[in-house]
Amino acid sequence: MSESQPSSPAAHQTALRARDGQRSLGSAPGETRSQTLHHLADLLAERQETLLAANREDLDRAAEQGLAPALLHRLELTPAKLATLTEGVRQLARESDPIGFAMRQTELDTGLILRQVRSPIGLLLVIFESRPDAVIQIGSLALRSGNAVLLKGGSEALKSNRALIDCLRAALLRGSLAEEAVQGIEGRDAARALLACDHLIDLVIPRGSNQLVRSIQSSTRIPVLGHADGICHLYLDAEADPEMATRLALDSKCDYPAACNAAETLLVHRAFLPHLGPLATALDQAGVELRADREALPHCPGATAATEEDWGTEYGNLTLAVRTVDSLEQAIDHIHRHGSAHTDAIVTENGETGRRFLDQVDSASVFWNASTRFADGYRYGLGAEVGISTSRIHARGPVGVEGLLTTRWLLEGQGQVASDYGEGKRHFSHRDLPVD
Amino acid sequence: MSESQPSSPAAHQTALRARDGQRSLGSAPGETRSQTLHHLADLLAERQETLLAANREDLDRAAEQGLAPALLHRLELTPAKLATLTEGVRQLARESDPIGFAMRQTELDTGLILRQVRSPIGLLLVIFESRPDAVIQIGSLALRSGNAVLLKGGSEALKSNRALIDCLRAALLRGSLAEEAVQGIEGRDAARALLACDHLIDLVIPRGSNQLVRSIQSSTRIPVLGHADGICHLYLDAEADPEMATRLALDSKCDYPAACNAAETLLVHRAFLPHLGPLATALDQAGVELRADREALPHCPGATAATEEDWGTEYGNLTLAVRTVDSLEQAIDHIHRHGSAHTDAIVTENGETGRRFLDQVDSASVFWNASTRFADGYRYGLGAEVGISTSRIHARGPVGVEGLLTTRWLLEGQGQVASDYGEGKRHFSHRDLPVD
Repeated sequence: MSESQPSSPAAHQTALRARDGQRSLGSAPGETRSQTLHHLADLLAERQETLLAANREDLDRAAEQGLAPALLHRLELTPAKLATLTEGVRQLARESDPIGFAMRQTELDTGLILRQVRSPIGLLLVIFESRPDAVIQIGSLALRSGNAVLLKGGSEALKSNRALIDCLRAALLRGSLAEEAVQGIEGRDAARALLACDHLIDLVIPRGSNQLVRSIQSSTRIPVLGHADGICHLYLDAEADPEMATRLALDSKCDYPAACNAAETLLVHRAFLPHLGPLATALDQAGVELRADREALPHCPGATAATEEDWGTEYGNLTLAVRTVDSLEQAIDHIHRHGSAHTDAIVTENGETGRRFLDQVDSASVFWNASTRFADGYRYGLGAEVGISTSRIHARGPVGVEGLLTTRWLLEGQGQVASDYGEGKRHFSHRDLPVD
Repeated sequence: MSESQPSSPAAHQTALRARDGQRSLGSAPGETRSQTLHHLADLLAERQETLLAANREDLDRAAEQGLAPALLHRLELTPAKLATLTEGVRQLARESDPIGFAMRQTELDTGLILRQVRSPIGLLLVIFESRPDAVIQIGSLALRSGNAVLLKGGSEALKSNRALIDCLRAALLRGSLAEEAVQGIEGRDAARALLACDHLIDLVIPRGSNQLVRSIQSSTRIPVLGHADGICHLYLDAEADPEMATRLALDSKCDYPAACNAAETLLVHRAFLPHLGPLATALDQAGVELRADREALPHCPGATAATEEDWGTEYGNLTLAVRTVDSLEQAIDHIHRHGSAHTDAIVTENGETGRRFLDQVDSASVFWNASTRFADGYRYGLGAEVGISTSRIHARGPVGVEGLLTTRWLLEGQGQVASDYGEGKRHFSHRDLPVD
């Protein structure tokens, strides 16, 4: 996508209709949003055959075009996948409605009560790649959080996405809400034109390759929630337990190497080097290709020499860089210099060292004696997630319903005027009140 | 400023040094930040003569250049203003440190504890116009929240700003923290080059005219916290108390017409029109120029006819648009269509109508029977504020220390690996624990 995007009257109209739809969705009672989510779960069951047939069309076309088996697998909907999606929607439906929840309540003066309450953000534009499951995961989070959403999926899942978006819109209609709050977007030009609607769209959420995320970040003025890189580190301290270090290195690298929370660099304290051999052998046996610095190299079977470039590379496969450090400070400095502030972990038996790492590493997720792979909305107990944010503004780390909310300040008075307080006729009490 | 900004090696170095300085500030114990704020208060007292002398130079130059008296007044530092600033700094010093505060604590499994804690955002770039007081107000909020800050003031306050920034840096040194965490930026070119450092600077905060804010928003990819427009509405419902309506209209418009939270448009329910005469007379007597629609015009002495343009104008002076509406829905629709989602208020004795307005108006601050002028960090009891945000992402409304913080997720384990949970060997408990 080019640097600056031209808007279009069609995109403007689409976004405007979605914003209007959001008002109906966001200001409805929480019970209506819960009921709409139950309608959605019902519809996914009722329309299972239609959904699988639409998906079959996508699969056939993709197979003709020679899509890789791994991608075909991601594209495929099955009764089991639909059942999992449906159960996720029912879980969200049972959650208490977050909108209007008072986070803070203050008596400014007698009869002048201020509340800060949770509110929907407004209109989201979500751009995702091949997995059609994303339509329901993101769509249901949008319904729960009262946000309107424009969904732009990959062309290979066109029919599946259409059929799933139809379910979302039908659920809104059954809930007597405006179906325009959810709209499918097709084609790159339409997406480009929407990225230029920065006065109507509040947040863009890209889900896909680093390349997709970067291209979106560089082509819109709308805030983007997501992460481009996941360069995660596992630091083996001088006082790391070697057995635990091996277990965490194997899981952090091998559990799912393509995930953004997989480790890309192993930082090793010089004093741990004598224990590195068995750990490196275990990684080698698990098929991991090691790229080690000069000092670590002799301890790593089959490793090649690392270059400066390795410290800044997200391999996304079974490759792992290994670097020797002299101290905790040097490890932290390496992480700040080369990392992407996504997820970084330390292995140490020393409590003070562990706590210093937790205090000082400025990443979205910082772990002590746990695998980097735990950085995930489901594992954190947030339920579904729209993605993991490495932005420092708004939501950080795994983002679920809470990250799709903002706040409003509501003030209820009895005719009070500000000038009375400026002139000293009245004084603020600023008394904290308990929240609901 | 032009659409795209060229960065410069100097800007990059400045931002890099500030980020390094932030690590020392942000990871120090809270007590150190409190002590540093006390040092700042001490320094403002110790250096009073130096500060007033520097300010005198700015005032003399400004007077020579014929700066307007109102602007000269804003530029001037006095012993009284310095005493107020000092007291504000001591108040912040006494507040409990927000960094590391756990907002949420969850046991994921036995011995696997997740905490979401408050953390500094990182590096702020604050661009402000003539008032040198802003240096201390913003600088002290940055110290309290553990953020590094680059301060770019107006050229007319150059000497004053330098002397005040020196106090901030001297306070950091006395607190054994890196003085590079606070830096003054001089000249438009330097500011422009920093706006291009979107990988190093986390947040830009413009404080000044709408023009300044818009020019910054359109010239950087860094998130901008602030508001360009303050088009606030006061809606007089059919069941508004006429006496209260008059009081609130006078205060919302006249208390400080240049403020962003002053009312620009009065929406009047048709059924209230018979009471509009005395209210309009009171506004007229207070010097307010009314621009009324066809139906309201006969009730407004001295009013001229409003045009469509009036609904979208922030007058910033004693001008007020008046529009007649048929219903609450029409009033809310007008607010959503023409407002800037800053602050909007209703006057009504009807509880249901009041609550519907609070629920449905999607603005940062929504009031019922209170003046729009209450939208302010001090009045809300937040202490000092860096500004009022109309963004829906991150902080919304008046922004104090809390809006300058983000979160990190900290996980402490005993060597747990994610694959055990995927394979069903272990199960998540996701048990909420009480927070500190």
